[in-house]
Amino acid sequence: MVQLNHNYQNLRDSYLFYNISQRTAAYQAAHPGQPIYRLGIGDVSQPLCPAVIEALHRAVDDQAHKASFRGYQPECGTAFLREAIARHYGSRGVSLQADEIFITSGAGDELGNLLGLFGPDNRVMVLEPAYPAYVDTNIMAGHPILRRSAGQENGFLPLPDGQTAELIYLCSPNNPTGAAYTRAQLQQWVDFANEIGAVILFDAAYEAFIQDADVPHSIYELPGAQECAIEICSLSKTAGFTGTRCGYTVVPRALVRDGQQLHPMWVRDRTTKTNGVSYILQRGAAAVFTPEGQRQTQAALAVYRENARVLAEALDRLGIWYCGGRNAPYLWLRCPDGLDSWAFFDRLLERAQIVGVPGAGFGACGEGFFRFSAFGDPAETREAAARLESKLTVES
Amino acid sequence: MVQLNHNYQNLRDSYLFYNISQRTAAYQAAHPGQPIYRLGIGDVSQPLCPAVIEALHRAVDDQAHKASFRGYQPECGTAFLREAIARHYGSRGVSLQADEIFITSGAGDELGNLLGLFGPDNRVMVLEPAYPAYVDTNIMAGHPILRRSAGQENGFLPLPDGQTAELIYLCSPNNPTGAAYTRAQLQQWVDFANEIGAVILFDAAYEAFIQDADVPHSIYELPGAQECAIEICSLSKTAGFTGTRCGYTVVPRALVRDGQQLHPMWVRDRTTKTNGVSYILQRGAAAVFTPEGQRQTQAALAVYRENARVLAEALDRLGIWYCGGRNAPYLWLRCPDGLDSWAFFDRLLERAQIVGVPGAGFGACGEGFFRFSAFGDPAETREAAARLESKLTVES
Repeated sequence: MVQLNHNYQNLRDSYLFYNISQRTAAYQAAHPGQPIYRLGIGDVSQPLCPAVIEALHRAVDDQAHKASFRGYQPECGTAFLREAIARHYGSRGVSLQADEIFITSGAGDELGNLLGLFGPDNRVMVLEPAYPAYVDTNIMAGHPILRRSAGQENGFLPLPDGQTAELIYLCSPNNPTGAAYTRAQLQQWVDFANEIGAVILFDAAYEAFIQDADVPHSIYELPGAQECAIEICSLSKTAGFTGTRCGYTVVPRALVRDGQQLHPMWVRDRTTKTNGVSYILQRGAAAVFTPEGQRQTQAALAVYRENARVLAEALDRLGIWYCGGRNAPYLWLRCPDGLDSWAFFDRLLERAQIVGVPGAGFGACGEGFFRFSAFGDPAETREAAARLESKLTVES
Repeated sequence: MVQLNHNYQNLRDSYLFYNISQRTAAYQAAHPGQPIYRLGIGDVSQPLCPAVIEALHRAVDDQAHKASFRGYQPECGTAFLREAIARHYGSRGVSLQADEIFITSGAGDELGNLLGLFGPDNRVMVLEPAYPAYVDTNIMAGHPILRRSAGQENGFLPLPDGQTAELIYLCSPNNPTGAAYTRAQLQQWVDFANEIGAVILFDAAYEAFIQDADVPHSIYELPGAQECAIEICSLSKTAGFTGTRCGYTVVPRALVRDGQQLHPMWVRDRTTKTNGVSYILQRGAAAVFTPEGQRQTQAALAVYRENARVLAEALDRLGIWYCGGRNAPYLWLRCPDGLDSWAFFDRLLERAQIVGVPGAGFGACGEGFFRFSAFGDPAETREAAARLESKLTVES
């Protein structure tokens, strides 16, 4: 009789977004016609930029004619896209070979795939509050998980404290907290990982939102990082690809652990387990890295940055503690009046008709905190910010 | 120190296609200007049909405008595509709920993903000659593998012989042999799997080539199959999606093993490990299942069927034993004159300038056999067939 993967029984279902939609629907049913202001959304709202749209159309046309038709693509990615991304890294002073860059369907798919490289006994360090897939994919793989709690005292940017693990997840700029490591802070993690022989899985999905010069876009801007880190990148937030799907992962040749280079292992993994990413999507993705594409994607990012600025200003005026919002599309605030995060959710909905995300959904240490997103419509976000100030009296 | 997945060290590199291209290049260098006739290709050559192209263009346009822009798609697939595929199954008398169908990036990606459902100690049965990913993904997962050899005596369609395993791979119509199980033969596998509590992983990538009424397109045409089988389908060969990427996998609710339904486990797996397939590609895929799309994809399939017919006729005239070519795009022939498969490769290249695939590349029992593909250009295939007859004297 088949034996199933019993680790799945250790997963806890997350009802976070289900509960949010249920409570919102109940409020709407009780208050028909009342507009709702959505600051909970983790998805983008701006369409793909014209350069990407044109490239996608051209690639679709290629598939219509025998002379230009493309069949199987290289499993690890097309040369044109890998080279474009290598040049993009180069423009930031990061030197990578094109074949150290692997084209993917996005970061969400990679987080599970990458675990295939590692044996079953590695301990995994997750800094909470965290994107739930870090924990869940490792529960499914049966890895022991060490949850470290971040908090207001360290600005939600915990540093190595001597506790060790073999795999370390870092996400900077962070989802959900919006906090971003400076160069000096991230260097501590790189040095620590090299000291203990760990691998850092660096989630750089939000790097495009960075504005401050001392916050690195890529972990490879730091010396020693190519010796310890895999970087997982996505065009989802950078260029609005959440529903279009394309990303990339970097496995540097210099990364050696357990007596082996990880790069050839990952090549072998990909050539066995995938037939590559759609030619059409890779053409669209390559357009992001043209000068035109870079200019146009910055225009959408400017919309989200302005949303974040407007929300930050409202929180400043209300005297509510928060982090993020400057180098990230998320603002992570302390629930006022000592409320727990679901109580604050209800108050915000009742008083200001604003929907956000309770911090308890991102790990136990997220309790008492709350996430706003800057991905919404600009007019709706401005109105929400105004309502925050006018409707939300902070009692203490 | 991180521990890597040491199972990867048990993989053997396949130099099959590398060796083919090296030997072909050497021949071309020695005979400049000499045309080469390629019957080795496992990729399609006909472009996407107009209905799919139109749907892809419309979906790209949706992504260009805020009002029609689509962000994150449901992880298990969009309702419009799952429902279209459920209706397609319905038209064949197979009753499936839309949410038993999971949209994928293609069969190549699913073969690795699906192993996440199973524990480490399951024994895996692979019927060789076989697509190498069945063996390699299971080596990477550390599963014990039982290789059963098919041969000319059973028409390369082995039936249960009492040997048991917990996971059984079946591919019908088969790559590389082109052989296809009849309803009665496949029923034996279904009954056997249910008797011993195994799960069948049924690779239906070539079902669109079936012409004979007693060869099932889906394993679910057989009673008891929803209780034991996962079906892995692809639009790669059906609709020319090898470079465009989209497929689907069926995990029926009736499939219960080890005290659990596999369906909710797979939903949990997908919602954790993927952010779904591109909206654009799912729109293109849905067009395949419209009446127009079905008619147009049949036109490309007719080209490949005619190629297969022409090659079969040549082999018939030469008196060479083969299977496949009727319900499949592959012909699997016995190398004439007792040649081993690489010796026949060389003879075919030297005498007739035809490139095919040596059977030894698909498992030890493929030695002495050879694969031709019907996916090539029709004119080139006709010329190759004529050259087979005129240049290849069979000595015995």
